[in-house]
Amino acid sequence: MSAHARRHPSTICFGTDPTVTSQSLDVTTLTADLIRHPSVSPDPGESQIALGATLEAMGFVVTHLPFGEGAERTPNLFARLGTGKPHLCFAGHTDVVPPGGSDWAHGPFAGTVENGRLYGRGACDMKGGIAAFVAAVSAFLARTPTPRGSISLLITGDEEGPARFGTRKVLEWMKQHDQIPDFCVVGEPTNPVAMGEVIKIGRRGSLNAHIIVNGRQGHVAYPHRADNPVHRLLRILAELTAEPLDNGSEWFEPSSLQVTSVDVGNTATNVIPAMAEARLNIRFNDLHTGAALRGWIETICMRHAPGATVNVSVSVSGESFLTKPGPDVSALSAAVKAVTGRDPKLDTGGGTSDARFIAQYCPVAEFGLVGASMHQIDEHVAVSDLASLTAIYENLLERTVA
Amino acid sequence: MSAHARRHPSTICFGTDPTVTSQSLDVTTLTADLIRHPSVSPDPGESQIALGATLEAMGFVVTHLPFGEGAERTPNLFARLGTGKPHLCFAGHTDVVPPGGSDWAHGPFAGTVENGRLYGRGACDMKGGIAAFVAAVSAFLARTPTPRGSISLLITGDEEGPARFGTRKVLEWMKQHDQIPDFCVVGEPTNPVAMGEVIKIGRRGSLNAHIIVNGRQGHVAYPHRADNPVHRLLRILAELTAEPLDNGSEWFEPSSLQVTSVDVGNTATNVIPAMAEARLNIRFNDLHTGAALRGWIETICMRHAPGATVNVSVSVSGESFLTKPGPDVSALSAAVKAVTGRDPKLDTGGGTSDARFIAQYCPVAEFGLVGASMHQIDEHVAVSDLASLTAIYENLLERTVA
Ligand SMILES: [Zn+2]
Ligand SMILES: [Zn+2]
Repeated sequence: MSAHARRHPSTICFGTDPTVTSQSLDVTTLTADLIRHPSVSPDPGESQIALGATLEAMGFVVTHLPFGEGAERTPNLFARLGTGKPHLCFAGHTDVVPPGGSDWAHGPFAGTVENGRLYGRGACDMKGGIAAFVAAVSAFLARTPTPRGSISLLITGDEEGPARFGTRKVLEWMKQHDQIPDFCVVGEPTNPVAMGEVIKIGRRGSLNAHIIVNGRQGHVAYPHRADNPVHRLLRILAELTAEPLDNGSEWFEPSSLQVTSVDVGNTATNVIPAMAEARLNIRFNDLHTGAALRGWIETICMRHAPGATVNVSVSVSGESFLTKPGPDVSALSAAVKAVTGRDPKLDTGGGTSDARFIAQYCPVAEFGLVGASMHQIDEHVAVSDLASLTAIYENLLERTVA
Repeated sequence: MSAHARRHPSTICFGTDPTVTSQSLDVTTLTADLIRHPSVSPDPGESQIALGATLEAMGFVVTHLPFGEGAERTPNLFARLGTGKPHLCFAGHTDVVPPGGSDWAHGPFAGTVENGRLYGRGACDMKGGIAAFVAAVSAFLARTPTPRGSISLLITGDEEGPARFGTRKVLEWMKQHDQIPDFCVVGEPTNPVAMGEVIKIGRRGSLNAHIIVNGRQGHVAYPHRADNPVHRLLRILAELTAEPLDNGSEWFEPSSLQVTSVDVGNTATNVIPAMAEARLNIRFNDLHTGAALRGWIETICMRHAPGATVNVSVSVSGESFLTKPGPDVSALSAAVKAVTGRDPKLDTGGGTSDARFIAQYCPVAEFGLVGASMHQIDEHVAVSDLASLTAIYENLLERTVA
């Protein structure tokens, strides 16, 4: 029995509350109900069962798609309404990051509304986004009971975690079952301060490298008898950081390389150490690939440490991707403008999201709530922003699948 | 009561053994007796009391000069025979480094002779050197009872430790009491493999620097909001190591800068850290001073970290020094050649010794035993090398003060 169920013995659950009908789904109530499932990553799955029930009641064909075994078991959900073209998909995650402390003014899983704000872990990242899409579909179907196109939701329970058995696996299943959409909107919080500021149409790639240089230990008074691995590593890092990787491209900021740690741990001031290591991260744009950067790093390492043993391990956690602006992105921009009055900036900055997986299958853009409080204590969303996002998604549905 | 006294209840002590006379001092016996005082740095002082008694019996005026209080109390000894010119001084230390393990084939403080080798802590560094000088004076006085010049010994009980209350303080006392010699020989083990190879006429200086750069922490995806201290530190270290400090000078090898550690300790691969630090050591020749190098390091740090807070702490543990070859060094070289047949190399390499303090008062050169086993387990000296060094010191006395 979950903590949630204990706190709500009358089972006022998302999608099963008898006062909720498909004609009257309220986005704030939906968000609060989702928050009350303490689905710290990976989501144990209860929130998706409730969500699935709501979608089934609205006419969606719901498929629960758990992947992974044991501790890695990840609940996922794919739901589709209709089979027509075009097929618009909304992608999101029910898992949240941990509360991160006990200093919350309102309980992180209470879903409390105060002064026009709904508080709770996941409020903006991104249970509010999921709720807004569900409420938008509900309102849209009330006016357009038999739309031309079809609508789907791709929901994962592990976006904040390792993401091995989440969106990536669901996409493979969708490919196998001929469910790849024509356009996908990811509901991550993209707006820095106010609704309508930013649509993300791509993301930079991310690469981590760990470089270990092994030298030969010795006394500082006799450097010719030793081989200082620190000096070799310094030359490697100097060359890697000497020049900017690029000056940016049409839709991307310049790529950025950050050395995040250099470590030797030698406390003897008269000893040349035997080993030195460094870690770096590259956020790279569409002028690079992970493989090319890996080769570049390895070549520089080999050049400056030819005598020494150098170990380079590179992991590419995501390639860069870009959905070039076209009719789909234009429709999303127009929906944002219609509701907020703002022309959203088409952006590719910031961190990574599951959109990197979706981009391998279809055009994808990201638009959601204001993310200022995401991952922080007292995460919250303005109730008016929830309404605004619901209206934007509904407007997009009108423009694309009506 | 010391461990030594307990093991030798009949008090067969250096200088008080009734079988030893000033005509028959045996260098191996003297060295073994000194080894049997386990005078791990700082020497508790017993070995110097025994040594002082021996020197008094030989006619020396002995002054015990303990400096420092409590745990820092350091026994020192100054002994002078005669007041004539020139005044030749021998400098050495009775303290030894710890045994460093229990794997000694012969007890570190037993003074065992086997297969022509005398084993024990201090055998070559440098109780053997002290014993060789005392035996040399004994033999010299047997043939020259009233020499023209005078002879002294400057003995400290803390050369291997912090050396704050040792040779440095004795030299101040000697200056105050008008006892500064015309030439000083330090009995450190200078020969790598065989007797007669190397006389040290100077030493490089040594400087340690600790550089801390404080930046501003942030997420790697938003480097413009952070200030990466690792990159600033890398630029500092790149400039410090870009060019050789010099190409050497007439009597010195090139100076050497070794970065001994760089540390950040950041395990989060997506975080730009707040702080980075490095440590380096410079062994510098007579083309530099500690103060000039300190200024050079500080200037480079300020240039590459003007916005960041950079903390640089520099400590100069010794300036470089050189005794330019002249009549004194020539006499020592000739004595070495006369006994060993070798022309000793005049060298300035290697670590530091108390000669750096003496060089501020008078010409100084270093010549002693073979140092291959110094500071190691089973430290030892060849009995034949002890005899050879005694003959060399006696030859030097003949050439300078007879
Ligand atoms: Zn998210
Ligand atoms: Zn020594």
